[in-house]
Amino acid sequence: MLIGVGSDMRYLTGYAAMPLERLTLLVLRAGAAPFIVVPRLELGAAEAGIRTDLEIKTWEETDDPYALAVAGMSGAARFAVSDTMLAMHLLRIQAALGDRATYLPASTVLRDLRMSKDDDEIALLRAAAHAADRVVAAIVGGSLVGRTEADVAREVRERLIDEGHESAMFAIVASGPNSASPHHEASERIIQAGEPIVLDIGGTLGGYGSDITRTLWVTGGDDTKHPDRDFTDMFAVLFEAQGAATRAVRPGIACEAVDAAARSAIDAAGHGPAFFHRTGHGIGLDGHEDPYIVAGNETPLGVGMAFSIEPGIYYPGRYGARIEDIVVCGEDGPIVLNEAPRELAIVDG
Amino acid sequence: MLIGVGSDMRYLTGYAAMPLERLTLLVLRAGAAPFIVVPRLELGAAEAGIRTDLEIKTWEETDDPYALAVAGMSGAARFAVSDTMLAMHLLRIQAALGDRATYLPASTVLRDLRMSKDDDEIALLRAAAHAADRVVAAIVGGSLVGRTEADVAREVRERLIDEGHESAMFAIVASGPNSASPHHEASERIIQAGEPIVLDIGGTLGGYGSDITRTLWVTGGDDTKHPDRDFTDMFAVLFEAQGAATRAVRPGIACEAVDAAARSAIDAAGHGPAFFHRTGHGIGLDGHEDPYIVAGNETPLGVGMAFSIEPGIYYPGRYGARIEDIVVCGEDGPIVLNEAPRELAIVDG
Repeated sequence: MLIGVGSDMRYLTGYAAMPLERLTLLVLRAGAAPFIVVPRLELGAAEAGIRTDLEIKTWEETDDPYALAVAGMSGAARFAVSDTMLAMHLLRIQAALGDRATYLPASTVLRDLRMSKDDDEIALLRAAAHAADRVVAAIVGGSLVGRTEADVAREVRERLIDEGHESAMFAIVASGPNSASPHHEASERIIQAGEPIVLDIGGTLGGYGSDITRTLWVTGGDDTKHPDRDFTDMFAVLFEAQGAATRAVRPGIACEAVDAAARSAIDAAGHGPAFFHRTGHGIGLDGHEDPYIVAGNETPLGVGMAFSIEPGIYYPGRYGARIEDIVVCGEDGPIVLNEAPRELAIVDG
Repeated sequence: MLIGVGSDMRYLTGYAAMPLERLTLLVLRAGAAPFIVVPRLELGAAEAGIRTDLEIKTWEETDDPYALAVAGMSGAARFAVSDTMLAMHLLRIQAALGDRATYLPASTVLRDLRMSKDDDEIALLRAAAHAADRVVAAIVGGSLVGRTEADVAREVRERLIDEGHESAMFAIVASGPNSASPHHEASERIIQAGEPIVLDIGGTLGGYGSDITRTLWVTGGDDTKHPDRDFTDMFAVLFEAQGAATRAVRPGIACEAVDAAARSAIDAAGHGPAFFHRTGHGIGLDGHEDPYIVAGNETPLGVGMAFSIEPGIYYPGRYGARIEDIVVCGEDGPIVLNEAPRELAIVDG
């Protein structure tokens, strides 16, 4: 197995190497000791980060690190490559190994390990979720009307750090018609009274991801600016769908069945075409990882799997809404990590 | 050419796609129109980001995007792959294309284009450099003794954003013995009076990178805590070496000769083994890109190339120092973008 910089390396060794153009490569061999190839410049960081018994082979700035890596692979013909290795490294490794070698994604081997979170990992996911909950509460309770989305997004990022995240990865603040774009980037649009805001925020805490979405409605304190019946009816459908998918979580159920639970509730109310993304994604050291909660994924949920449940309904040009929690599959059903209220928050803003 | 998410895609199309497990792929074909494969979920972002005339092929959550991509490549046998494409995508593309295909890094083709910055790109690099200069000035003039490195690093990140960076990518704050570790991560170590601090910070502004290093010495206001002669002598050598490499910059000189200019000054003073990294790296849409200022790189500098010049001297267990500027190769010699004073700053801290 050839593991480049990324979550697989961190998972297997503890080492959260910086992504660099210089090659860092963990090599796991059947029947032989593992080793890791590290630029000499990163030796201190590697020694500090690696928590396993692992030979470190360093290379100098003018050495060929690919030759150093390949020298330890004599006889091997089949290689599992970590999903996030950069093509620049994989192509050089493939050239060094020659035509004889075949390749497959390392996730084929690692996904079962990484999908099932142990208690320590769940504790970190919970801590990250609760920190994100507090940020949502602060934003929902704060001043919004008249500010730009980008300004609110900046506050989100600062608050995530204040709440213990080492990294604020994303802060979607999608107001008014922008709420109909699931991956909207916070823009210079000024938030108006009488419109929805989809707030989808997250980052990492102790290496593990947070990811929460809440939809709110800002009135500016004007009683005539409350949501109309179309919006509240749509939101009620979404709320029910998100709850139905969550309640479906139990060991043995297929990922696609959890997706179907959300989708059928939305379909039944006639909003099916407006829910055009999967219901969720796994979360751990990566913000998006296995298991994916999507049609066609027959993987049965197992105890300790952690993932988002985040259906959305989007009407381009008008508005949209989404609700997202991080959920762990427990022995007896869902363990919902987020605790922020998921009802539509109607606030002065 | 198969261009995944990353700087190559942004350079060629304007689209700064989010790095996702979902495939986004720009396909450039000899003798046929280019197209881009985009998850439907990202269609809005793609349409907003793409500034060229480009067919967009979208795929739904349950489609096979690799089949969609490969369908447009009939007849091709040789593929250039963007350096930062993820292995998970490359392996799937390779499987779809079969044994007939061969691959090379797209940088083989794109590096000459990307290395030579035009006036707009240089203006962004200069704006990023000046913003980073102001952050350095604020930190050097601020309170340091008694704070943790991590706390100072956090201030650096906030100030980079305040100065217009959209992203604060790194903030090395390496105090006392940590200054001997070139890629030290800011730690919980408390900064003491009577020691050096290597400050190496940067991020992106308008997509283009900043990257500056300054070394300072904090006395805590105590006259007995000034640097000793060993340190100031070492720093004087470093200062001369950084200047010598900068003055060597002119069109036609080999990258390795710029490296040698710094290295020979440090060698001559007996510090050669303590300067164990290359002199610099290119900078643009990527923080590290071609041209690399390193022994063995015979690439001649051309007008508009932008790169760091950052020699360092490191004595593990004791201390280290580094000075770094971003420099553009001008028609008549170096254009140094950073303006913060590069002499050793001896401050109360």
